Amino acid sequence: MKTIFMKKLFSLLLFLSFFGNLHSQTAIKVNQKRLSETLKTLSTFGKNEAGGSDRVAYSSHDMEARNYVKDLMVKAGLEVSTDFAGNIIGKKAGTIPDLKPIAFGSHIDEVPNGGDYDGPVGSLSAIEVVRTLTENKIMTQHPLEVIIFTNEEGGVVGSRALAGQLSQEALQVKSSSGLTQYEGIKSVGGDPDRISELKRNPGEVTAFLELHIEQGGNLDREGIDIGVVEGIVAIEWYEFTFQGFANHAGTTPMNMRKDPMLPAAKLILAVNEIVTSFDGAQVATVGKVDVFPGAGNVIPGEVKINVEIRDLSSDKIHQVYLAIEARAKSLAEESKTELSINHIEVASKPALANPEIQRTIENAAKSLGFSSMYLPSGAGHDAQEMARFAPIGMIFIPSKDGISHSPKEYSSPEDIANGANVLLQTILSLDKQFQ
Amino acid sequence: MKTIFMKKLFSLLLFLSFFGNLHSQTAIKVNQKRLSETLKTLSTFGKNEAGGSDRVAYSSHDMEARNYVKDLMVKAGLEVSTDFAGNIIGKKAGTIPDLKPIAFGSHIDEVPNGGDYDGPVGSLSAIEVVRTLTENKIMTQHPLEVIIFTNEEGGVVGSRALAGQLSQEALQVKSSSGLTQYEGIKSVGGDPDRISELKRNPGEVTAFLELHIEQGGNLDREGIDIGVVEGIVAIEWYEFTFQGFANHAGTTPMNMRKDPMLPAAKLILAVNEIVTSFDGAQVATVGKVDVFPGAGNVIPGEVKINVEIRDLSSDKIHQVYLAIEARAKSLAEESKTELSINHIEVASKPALANPEIQRTIENAAKSLGFSSMYLPSGAGHDAQEMARFAPIGMIFIPSKDGISHSPKEYSSPEDIANGANVLLQTILSLDKQFQ
Repeated sequence: MKTIFMKKLFSLLLFLSFFGNLHSQTAIKVNQKRLSETLKTLSTFGKNEAGGSDRVAYSSHDMEARNYVKDLMVKAGLEVSTDFAGNIIGKKAGTIPDLKPIAFGSHIDEVPNGGDYDGPVGSLSAIEVVRTLTENKIMTQHPLEVIIFTNEEGGVVGSRALAGQLSQEALQVKSSSGLTQYEGIKSVGGDPDRISELKRNPGEVTAFLELHIEQGGNLDREGIDIGVVEGIVAIEWYEFTFQGFANHAGTTPMNMRKDPMLPAAKLILAVNEIVTSFDGAQVATVGKVDVFPGAGNVIPGEVKINVEIRDLSSDKIHQVYLAIEARAKSLAEESKTELSINHIEVASKPALANPEIQRTIENAAKSLGFSSMYLPSGAGHDAQEMARFAPIGMIFIPSKDGISHSPKEYSSPEDIANGANVLLQTILSLDKQFQ
Repeated sequence: MKTIFMKKLFSLLLFLSFFGNLHSQTAIKVNQKRLSETLKTLSTFGKNEAGGSDRVAYSSHDMEARNYVKDLMVKAGLEVSTDFAGNIIGKKAGTIPDLKPIAFGSHIDEVPNGGDYDGPVGSLSAIEVVRTLTENKIMTQHPLEVIIFTNEEGGVVGSRALAGQLSQEALQVKSSSGLTQYEGIKSVGGDPDRISELKRNPGEVTAFLELHIEQGGNLDREGIDIGVVEGIVAIEWYEFTFQGFANHAGTTPMNMRKDPMLPAAKLILAVNEIVTSFDGAQVATVGKVDVFPGAGNVIPGEVKINVEIRDLSSDKIHQVYLAIEARAKSLAEESKTELSINHIEVASKPALANPEIQRTIENAAKSLGFSSMYLPSGAGHDAQEMARFAPIGMIFIPSKDGISHSPKEYSSPEDIANGANVLLQTILSLDKQFQ
């Protein structure tokens, strides 16, 4: 009898350990092999001859991939539906009826000639996590919700819809597939006319988690397993236009020119010098230069350069901008050109990760024996839109040489499984912490 | 009897004075008012709402203008025809049958949204010169030939044909009108299939003269009436490509970038610094910058800049190029980018004006009481192609503020008439000098 009692007690402790502090010793794990295989299968939808992925949103490749992913979700024990924005939603009930869901997921669409990891890693890991829970007959208190977002690469379309940020105007924008967002959403089973009904309000989602490849070289370079994302940076674009006087490149002596190319070239160098003169992880990029008229035999009349600045702090961005602006003004003055500046808001507010979720991710990594570091996300993600109404957290895994949006992007099966296991443990911890 | 003899002697001297050194006191003059009026009428063909001229070659405006000009040529006493390249040719016989013609002319087509003086001044002055000779019943020893060249602005098409430089390939190039050169030439009455028959050989033309607005600010700034052109500069294009590594502008830390925009910006500044460090009138221009992929949120993978260098001396161009090349190489090295250089031959040989013709133009200006200066032509002209088989000379008149290829280009009626009178006297002098 005593033996039976001890056995039962042991079973109970074992069971409890999945939900308690003991889980570090006995943590359930995702099936790495299965996760790798599903990623491999997913990568076949839209693979091009150059080895890249042409699985842009709303393409036939995207449609095939969506069907494959829906099947996987059903196998994982999720109740699957498509919402008005074309997001694939998978639901699993929790043990406490009134709790709001813990949501997690990512996207499966790619940039044209993209890679196999950006999006798919977080999407298939989310499904694998639920499948692992189901196989282990583990019920969480909170309902779980896996979200595979529509057209992330084309402007976080699906998550913007959930945040109530997808305007009718935005729906008319053409996507990489050639279809407008409106047509594309319709083609994947959404109902773009009812998108406003999707808007979720604060309190409706307990937490949102997204696992993603880093898309930068920090983890890979430092040999660190897990990145705890502090937030998604704000992005600001500033278009500096220097106006001189277009003239004949053969007949206008050097000392009679008012060539806007010269202050523009100096500003390009100044942007680099200024952004690196501040402490911190802020970045600034000149990725676009427009020269008018842009002919080899004409001194330009106008040169436009696009300066992008990103940082977790909007204030830091503004400081960097002010220094660049001051330099631009003095360059215009000394070159006797006219300067105009156009501010284009891209994502003017950073999306900060919830501090408790950050600590929970760090602890989950530690409990599994993984090294981790805190870092910002320089790239945009669906999580940034979810942050408008829910506490968010993001988990990064190493991305080889920091390459992304390229057929060359790569994360190892181990690193991916590590990320999925941290996601799993974070969900289990938050399930207890957030009531 | 003595009185009658004296009268006859006086008449003879008066007559001779038109051809001899005495002409300065008694020079016949073009009709400035008529010349102004014909220029004004010509400007109506293709005038757009912004005040610019849309008389691109082969357009309906060009066709109307060609008909107007042909009428003027007939009125001037010329025998008018259109050659296989669509050039309008006007011939007037000379008194010595075996002499080869003295040719002169320019073009009446314009760049899109161009002005009213570039081309028309030389074309209508050439016709006015002949009309003045005809009205004054002056016969030259040499036959005279007025040439209104086809599509100068689209690549000196008509003069290239006469020089035997217009390939079948070049005929397939699209012109600003939308027609290919082949189609365009056909539409204005040429026969592009027989263009090779037009080629003229050295010795077939005694001299070619072109009057033109300066298209630079030298004469206008210095207040000088007439420019004696030393030659038409050679033009070389060099495409410098810096290759770095395209990457995500948000996730790639500043110190992990291999951004080709930085050496490219430095080279733009170096081009200006280097070309002005040499003595002389050479010019260098960066009028075209291509950034790949050219998106505000992507660190460029490749930046291409086009460097154009012009000078009367090919050797000077080469020296300037070598200094720029050396700088480009060291910029690539210090930025760890790959450099490639592509040399595009535009007009690799300068077209030097014949020294005797230069002196004749200078003397003609002096005899009429005009100030003059020697200067190179930084712009290309039909004369450069004519120089391949004939001694050439060019006469420049002031162009306000050096503006050209613009609705703002302007030369005063007096300056234009001065140029036409210098052209007239130069023809009369060469008629005696060149036998």
